[in-house]
Parts: sequence; C-alpha cells; structure tokens
Amino acid sequence: MPARGDAQKVRDVGEAGLLELFRPFCDSRVGDDAALLGSTLPDHSVVITTDMLVEGVHFSPQTTAAEDVGWRAAAASLSDLAAMGGKPWGLVVAVGLQPETAVSWIEGVYRGFQECLKTYDTVLVGGDTVRSHCNVISVTALGQVPYNQAIYRHTAKPGDRVLITGAHGLSKAGLEILLQPELGVDLTEQEREMLHRAHQRPCPRLDVIPLLWQYTDRVCGMDSSDGLADAILQICHLSQVGCTIDWANFPLPASVEKVARVAQANPLDWVLYGGEDFELVLCLPDTAAIALQKQLPGSLIIGTITEGEGGINLPQGRAFQHFV
Amino acid sequence: MPARGDAQKVRDVGEAGLLELFRPFCDSRVGDDAALLGSTLPDHSVVITTDMLVEGVHFSPQTTAAEDVGWRAAAASLSDLAAMGGKPWGLVVAVGLQPETAVSWIEGVYRGFQECLKTYDTVLVGGDTVRSHCNVISVTALGQVPYNQAIYRHTAKPGDRVLITGAHGLSKAGLEILLQPELGVDLTEQEREMLHRAHQRPCPRLDVIPLLWQYTDRVCGMDSSDGLADAILQICHLSQVGCTIDWANFPLPASVEKVARVAQANPLDWVLYGGEDFELVLCLPDTAAIALQKQLPGSLIIGTITEGEGGINLPQGRAFQHFV
Repeated sequence: MPARGDAQKVRDVGEAGLLELFRPFCDSRVGDDAALLGSTLPDHSVVITTDMLVEGVHFSPQTTAAEDVGWRAAAASLSDLAAMGGKPWGLVVAVGLQPETAVSWIEGVYRGFQECLKTYDTVLVGGDTVRSHCNVISVTALGQVPYNQAIYRHTAKPGDRVLITGAHGLSKAGLEILLQPELGVDLTEQEREMLHRAHQRPCPRLDVIPLLWQYTDRVCGMDSSDGLADAILQICHLSQVGCTIDWANFPLPASVEKVARVAQANPLDWVLYGGEDFELVLCLPDTAAIALQKQLPGSLIIGTITEGEGGINLPQGRAFQHFV
Repeated sequence: MPARGDAQKVRDVGEAGLLELFRPFCDSRVGDDAALLGSTLPDHSVVITTDMLVEGVHFSPQTTAAEDVGWRAAAASLSDLAAMGGKPWGLVVAVGLQPETAVSWIEGVYRGFQECLKTYDTVLVGGDTVRSHCNVISVTALGQVPYNQAIYRHTAKPGDRVLITGAHGLSKAGLEILLQPELGVDLTEQEREMLHRAHQRPCPRLDVIPLLWQYTDRVCGMDSSDGLADAILQICHLSQVGCTIDWANFPLPASVEKVARVAQANPLDWVLYGGEDFELVLCLPDTAAIALQKQLPGSLIIGTITEGEGGINLPQGRAFQHFV
C-alpha cells in the first residue's frame, strides 16, 4: 500500500479536491461530461487502446515509485499505439482509489504520467476519479494512423524477416534486482542503472513508426509487452505462419545474463518470457528489415517467417498467462 | 461477491479463455494491440469520456444482476456523450476481475453491455481483461459531435430556461425498493416495475440531441448522473450565473413520494440528490425550451437562469460527494 503514513488521504480531500489536483495535468477543459478532441487528420483512422493496471498485480510500491507507476501506465498505452503504427492524439485516465490512499501518491502518479506524455508529445484530455476497494488505473489512448499504414498481427508472410527494435529481458532483470538488490552483485553501476530504468521508465517505440514506411509498404507486428515469445506466437497464430528463430545468434544482454546467473535462472527465459520491454516485433520484407536494422541502433533481425502455422523452433513452449 | 458458488471461475479459464468469451461481443478484430475506428465525419470533433465502476461502490450484486451492471456501465458512458451533444461512435471496456469471480458473471456483464450498445446503435470495439483484487469495470466511449454543436456546462446565460428531459428520483426509489422490497408496499405493480427499471436499465437521452438544434443554436447542459441538484450547481458555477427554481411546480413523481413516505424520507431529497437518472439538464432560450418541452414527453421547464453566480434558490445546499 503506498505511503499510508502520509498526512493527507484521498478521503480527506474528496472528489472536488482530487479534481483540483487533476486539473493542472490535464490539457483540456476539466468539468464537462466528456472531453473534445478535434477531427482526424485527412486520410487517417482513429486507433484506440485501453489498459488496466491494478496495485499488487501490475505494480507494487516496493519496486515502483508513484511517478514510475504513472510513467509506465502511459508508456504501456503509447506502446500499443506504436504497435498499431499510430501517432498519439490524446489520453484519458480513470483512477480508482482506496480512501486511505495518500494524496501525494496519486499526485505522483499523475506527475509521472504527464512526464511520459510530454516526452512523447501528447496530452491528457480527461479522466475519472472514483472510490475503490483496490487502487486501479485505467488508461485509454487515442492515436491516428494513415489509412494504409496500420500495423496488424495477422499479415506476416513467409519470407518476412522478424526484427526486434531492441533488447529483451532488461525489464525483468531490472525488476529482479529491485526486489533483491543482491542479485545485481556482478553488475557495473551503469548496468544497474540501465536495468532499473528499463523496468521503471520503459520507452514506447513511437520513434520507429516514421522510419518504417521508407523501406516497405507492408509491415506486420505488435509490441512485446507480454513477452517476446508471446509476440512471436501471437503473430504466427494470427498470420497462420511459422517462424524460424536464429538461436545461434540470439541476443542475451550481458546484464541480463549476470543477474540471471546469480539468481540461478535461465537468462533465455527472462528474454523470451520476461515481458514489459515495450519493444516492437516486426515482420517485413528482407531488404526493408536489413535497411531498418542498419538505421535503428539496437534493433536486430532474429528470424524468418515460414510456411506452416505454428511451426516455431522455440526452445520452450511456455507463454505468459495473466490468470495462472 | 457475484455468484461465487458457480462452477467456472475466472482463474479456471485464464486470459485466453476470457478473450474468447469477449470476442463475440466485440465488433472489431480482437487480437491486435489496439482497435481501429474510421475517420471522423466532416466537420465533426471526437468526444471522449471515461468512467470507472467498482463492485461494492457503484454496483452491488444484491441490487444489480450482471446484465444490468453491463447495461448501466454502457448507459452511463453514453449519457456522458449525450451530455456533450455527441453521437456514439464506439466504446472500449477494461475489466479487472478477482480470480474467484464466476465466468458466468462477467459474461452477463458483457451481454448487458452489448444489449445497451445495440439499443443505441453503437458497438464495442476493444478492451482489456486483467486480474484484480476487486471487480472493476472501466468504460471509455467515443462519440462525434458537429463542430458548433458541442454542449458545455459553462455557457448558460441569464434568461435561459432550465429544462429537464425527464423525471428524477426514480433510480433512487428503485434502488431503495430493491434493497428493501417492503418500502414499495403502496406501489402499483406497474410503478414497482417502472422504478426497478429506472434503476437497473437507465436510458441515456441520446434521442434528445437531434431535436435540440431545430429550435436554437445555443444549448448549455450536462447529464444528471450525479443528481439533479449537482447538475444545476455545476452549470451555475461554471457559467457564473444563478438559477431560480420554480419550487411551486417542481415535479415529485407519485411513485417516488409513495416509497419515500414509507421510508420516512423526504422525496425532494431523492429527486434532487438521488442521482443516476441519466436525464439531461439543459439551459436554452425561452422559446426553444417551450418548443422542446412540447415535443419531448416527460420533459419540463423547472426554472430560469439569473444574473449573479451561485444565487440558487435551492431548499437545501447539500450536493453529492463521491468521497465522503
């Protein structure tokens, strides 16, 4: 439970007080039943995504400061927009708060949320704040995407190369050393800092989208928020294809290996199933993949899409399940 | 807690199972990171509203069947769109579920949700389902509104008439007889049915919007979801005006009076502060108000906007507060 000892609680300030608190973070008029955005850009569709984060399930005060909870909530939604090829347009956030929650905590959440939105040049346009039996944050993000540049999971074609936009397993390793700092004994200070940051301040890959269409007019993909293995499995399932991963050259970040070794875990598990790295997993024609890899530091071609649904040469078959 | 005794729990079906369950209720492709809507209509803005409903705070299995929880969640969001003058475009719903929640319960919620959307000619386009420590439903609704026909709370002018689109206090009286059926002893069967329905299946007044602009090019207003008194106070505060209510002819529905009498409550309190009637409270020029009242059965002019912020001749000053 966040900062129960603090002086001012949600129950002390009431809904009106929370609305006042929310106002400076919000870009549009607060006070109406709904918020107005403008019209869509010419030849653009609206893309919409909604995510719910629950205290004790998706974030914990032990590993995540209030500001980081806000940042991560925003980043997860912006990553979904990026995964669809969209440019952010505006977000709304509904927050359910236990009456004994510290006002400073929710203020920190809003602050981190706005910091992320500013970084990615978008705005909070509205919200709702209610009493709840557990602390919950629900974010809905709107974006815009040109008609012919929406990215789906079901359009991968045999021969496409599978490109990841960055390293995986970092968020998981970051979480582990936040929970048990002694697991980071072999890390340099810089590595430790980088892993903390990977977990606390993940970066949605909105920067990748404008680059994509220079090289191809067809991209399939999604983000790796639920794990890299899950992303590959989802794409293969929905595209009815298989995938051959180049395990010989598969990237295991040194920092992830160091932490996993001390934790007596398999670093490959963390890379494949850790989740929350918020990179993009893209399937695109060979020449486009090579060009993109050249332009995008940290990106890597890890495999090739093949005929035959489900034929994936994964070393393990497990995938992330929310409810188990 | 809803139907804990049922055979199948959320924890039994997992996220994949819930997604399967969700799919038939959703109008767009399920499986991508986000959903796509089209472009806005020419000269229309997007209007967006988000609401969170928590079990034990905003709904209770004692008074509300799963289907009604879903209907009410959809209706509340659609009412916010109506309050802004918008036409529904599409909704997303994020659901947080305790693992021991019965699958049949969430299925019922989706069913009621969709029933309401169908009734108002709109669709569910996406969602999220997560594990939670309390059952939570978060709805975000998108609508479209012509550039010059958005309805705000801050544009009431002295001389405007205050029109309500229907009766108030019904939802509160309905709730009371659901909690204590003996309070309905004086009701006819038809009244009882009507009050139950007012609470369980409230109707967002989307039907009012197309009528409005025949008579005026200026309307101020909001919905009465947080109570009729709250709506009047909000409008007066944000418009910096006062309001004179015609208390002599103020409507107290007979059915509300009957229940309140048995409950030894003041029926006026229920009408003013009960909330969740989801009517519209509109401020518009005299001739337009009279014309609209004539065209809209059940609507009534209840007062007049005056100079002088806050000068409201309310019999009582209390207003609904979420956190007290």
